[in-house]
Amino acid sequence: MGVTNFVRFEDDQRNVLYGEAHASAVGGNLEGALVTVLSGDPFSGFTSTGEKSMIKKLLCPLETTPIIMCIGLNYARHAREANLAVPSNPVVFTKPADAMAGPYDDIPIHPDAQSQLDYEGEMCVIISQDAKNVSEADALSYVLGYTVGNDVSARNYQLPASVSGNQFSYAKSFDSFAPIGPTVLLAPGVDPQALKYTTKVNGEIRQETGTDDMIWSMKQIIAHLSRGTTLRRGTLIMTGTPSGVGLFVEPKGAGFLKDGDVVEIELEGIGAIRNRMAFEK
Amino acid sequence: MGVTNFVRFEDDQRNVLYGEAHASAVGGNLEGALVTVLSGDPFSGFTSTGEKSMIKKLLCPLETTPIIMCIGLNYARHAREANLAVPSNPVVFTKPADAMAGPYDDIPIHPDAQSQLDYEGEMCVIISQDAKNVSEADALSYVLGYTVGNDVSARNYQLPASVSGNQFSYAKSFDSFAPIGPTVLLAPGVDPQALKYTTKVNGEIRQETGTDDMIWSMKQIIAHLSRGTTLRRGTLIMTGTPSGVGLFVEPKGAGFLKDGDVVEIELEGIGAIRNRMAFEK
Repeated sequence: MGVTNFVRFEDDQRNVLYGEAHASAVGGNLEGALVTVLSGDPFSGFTSTGEKSMIKKLLCPLETTPIIMCIGLNYARHAREANLAVPSNPVVFTKPADAMAGPYDDIPIHPDAQSQLDYEGEMCVIISQDAKNVSEADALSYVLGYTVGNDVSARNYQLPASVSGNQFSYAKSFDSFAPIGPTVLLAPGVDPQALKYTTKVNGEIRQETGTDDMIWSMKQIIAHLSRGTTLRRGTLIMTGTPSGVGLFVEPKGAGFLKDGDVVEIELEGIGAIRNRMAFEK
Repeated sequence: MGVTNFVRFEDDQRNVLYGEAHASAVGGNLEGALVTVLSGDPFSGFTSTGEKSMIKKLLCPLETTPIIMCIGLNYARHAREANLAVPSNPVVFTKPADAMAGPYDDIPIHPDAQSQLDYEGEMCVIISQDAKNVSEADALSYVLGYTVGNDVSARNYQLPASVSGNQFSYAKSFDSFAPIGPTVLLAPGVDPQALKYTTKVNGEIRQETGTDDMIWSMKQIIAHLSRGTTLRRGTLIMTGTPSGVGLFVEPKGAGFLKDGDVVEIELEGIGAIRNRMAFEK
C-alpha cells in the first residue's frame, strides 16, 4: 500500500525528516509519536524507508509556498450568519508565504492586531504541479493532498470598508497567520466534500461543519483560480470558513481571541492544529 | 559616480545581462540601445564593467518576486473620480509572481477577461532587503529603486460586489497582468513624491499625474505593509493609480481596452513601458 499521509518534523538530533503517521496517532499529540521515515519529498513522491523515528518537534508540512490563495464566504451557513449575499464567483484574497506556520506554533500577535483577533477553521488543499486553465473535471488531479488551517484574522483591519476599503488581505497577512497541519492527507481516494471538522477555543466548540456545506467545491475553486493564471506547485489554498467565527459570538466582542487563547482545529483523518495566541508587547 | 539605474536584457547571443542605460536613451525605445554592462545583481550591488552591449530584447528588470503588493485608491483625484471615501488605512491587495511581465511584452488576455479590460499606470517600488516593523523614518532605506507598472485589471471580475465580494485580487492576478520597467531608477537621491507620469492608450493621453497627489506616501506604505509582516527582498509594491482609468471614460464602456490596444506608461527618468493587449481566442 502506498504512503497515505505525511508529516514534516525534527527528530531528537534536529534532523528535518518526512514521516508517515500511523492512523492511530493522527488524532492525538504527534510530538512524541513514532512515525515511519519517508524518503523523497512531497512533489517528487515519497517512499517508505521502513525505519521508525520519534517526532521531537512537529513542523509545518510545507517548507515554503509560492502563495496562499484564500476563499471567503464559502459555507452556506456562514454566509447567512454574516448576512451577506453570495457573489457569483468565489471570493478570493491572499496571504504571503511568511504567513504559513507550523501546526503547534505559537502565533505572535502584533500590538496593533490584538483588538479584534479572530480564528477561521478551514480545510486546505496543496497543489501538486503547475496548473493553468484546468477544467473542473481535471482539477483533482492537480491536488497533492489536504490539510487543516487557521485563517487568523485581525478584524480591526478587515472591517468596515472605511478602514480597509473592503480588502481582506492585509488583516490576514501577518507573519504566522496561517498555521497548517498536522499531517497532509494524500489525495488519492479522498472525497474532499465529505469531511467533518471542528474548531475549539480553549476546548470549547465554536465551529462544527461538514465540507458538504461548501458553496464552491474544491474542483470549482481550482478551476476558477487557474483561469488564465498559473497556480504553482506548492500553492496552498484555504477554502473558506464555516459559521461560528468569533466576530458573530454574542455579546458583541466576546468571541475575539485573547492573549494565551489556544485555537484547535481538527479535521477527521488529518488531525488537529493547536496554536496559542502570543500577544506581543 | 555610482550606478544610477539598471535594465535586464538579452544581447544578440541571448546572454541575459544587466546594464546601465544612458540618460539620453531612457526616454526612447531601449531595444537597439547601447548600455554599459554591469556585474553583480540588484540585491548584492552592481559594478560597471565599462563594456558596452546592445539590447536585443529588453526583459522584466526583476527575474522573479516573492509577491506583488498593490495599493488601491491612492490618488486624491482618482478617489473623487471613483466617488469613493478614502479609508483610514491604505487599501491593500496582491498579485502573484507570475503576474510580473517585461516592459515591452504582449499581455495575453484570457477570453473570460476581455469584456471590461482596463489599465492602471502606477509608480512601483522594489524592496532591497527583508523588512519588518519598519518606521516611516527608516522606510526609504529599504528601497532598492523605482520603476513603472501597469496594474492590468479585468473589471468584470472586480466589480460589483455581487461578482467579487469586493475583493480586487482575482481581477488583477492573471499571468502577465503586471508589466514593469523599462529601467529601475536606483533609490539614493530620488524623491519618490516628486515624479510625473503619463498613461497613453494608442498614443492618446489618459492619465497625467504627479506622485505628489498620492494620499499615502511611499514611506507610509512601506511602514504599513511591514507591520508584523515580513516584506521579503525583491517584493514589488505597486502604489496605486491616478485618475483617468478606462472605467470612468464616457460614454460608459468606451474606455476599456480592445484587442491590439497598446498601453504606454512613462515616468520621468525611468522611461516607458509599452504593452500590447493580445486577446486569446
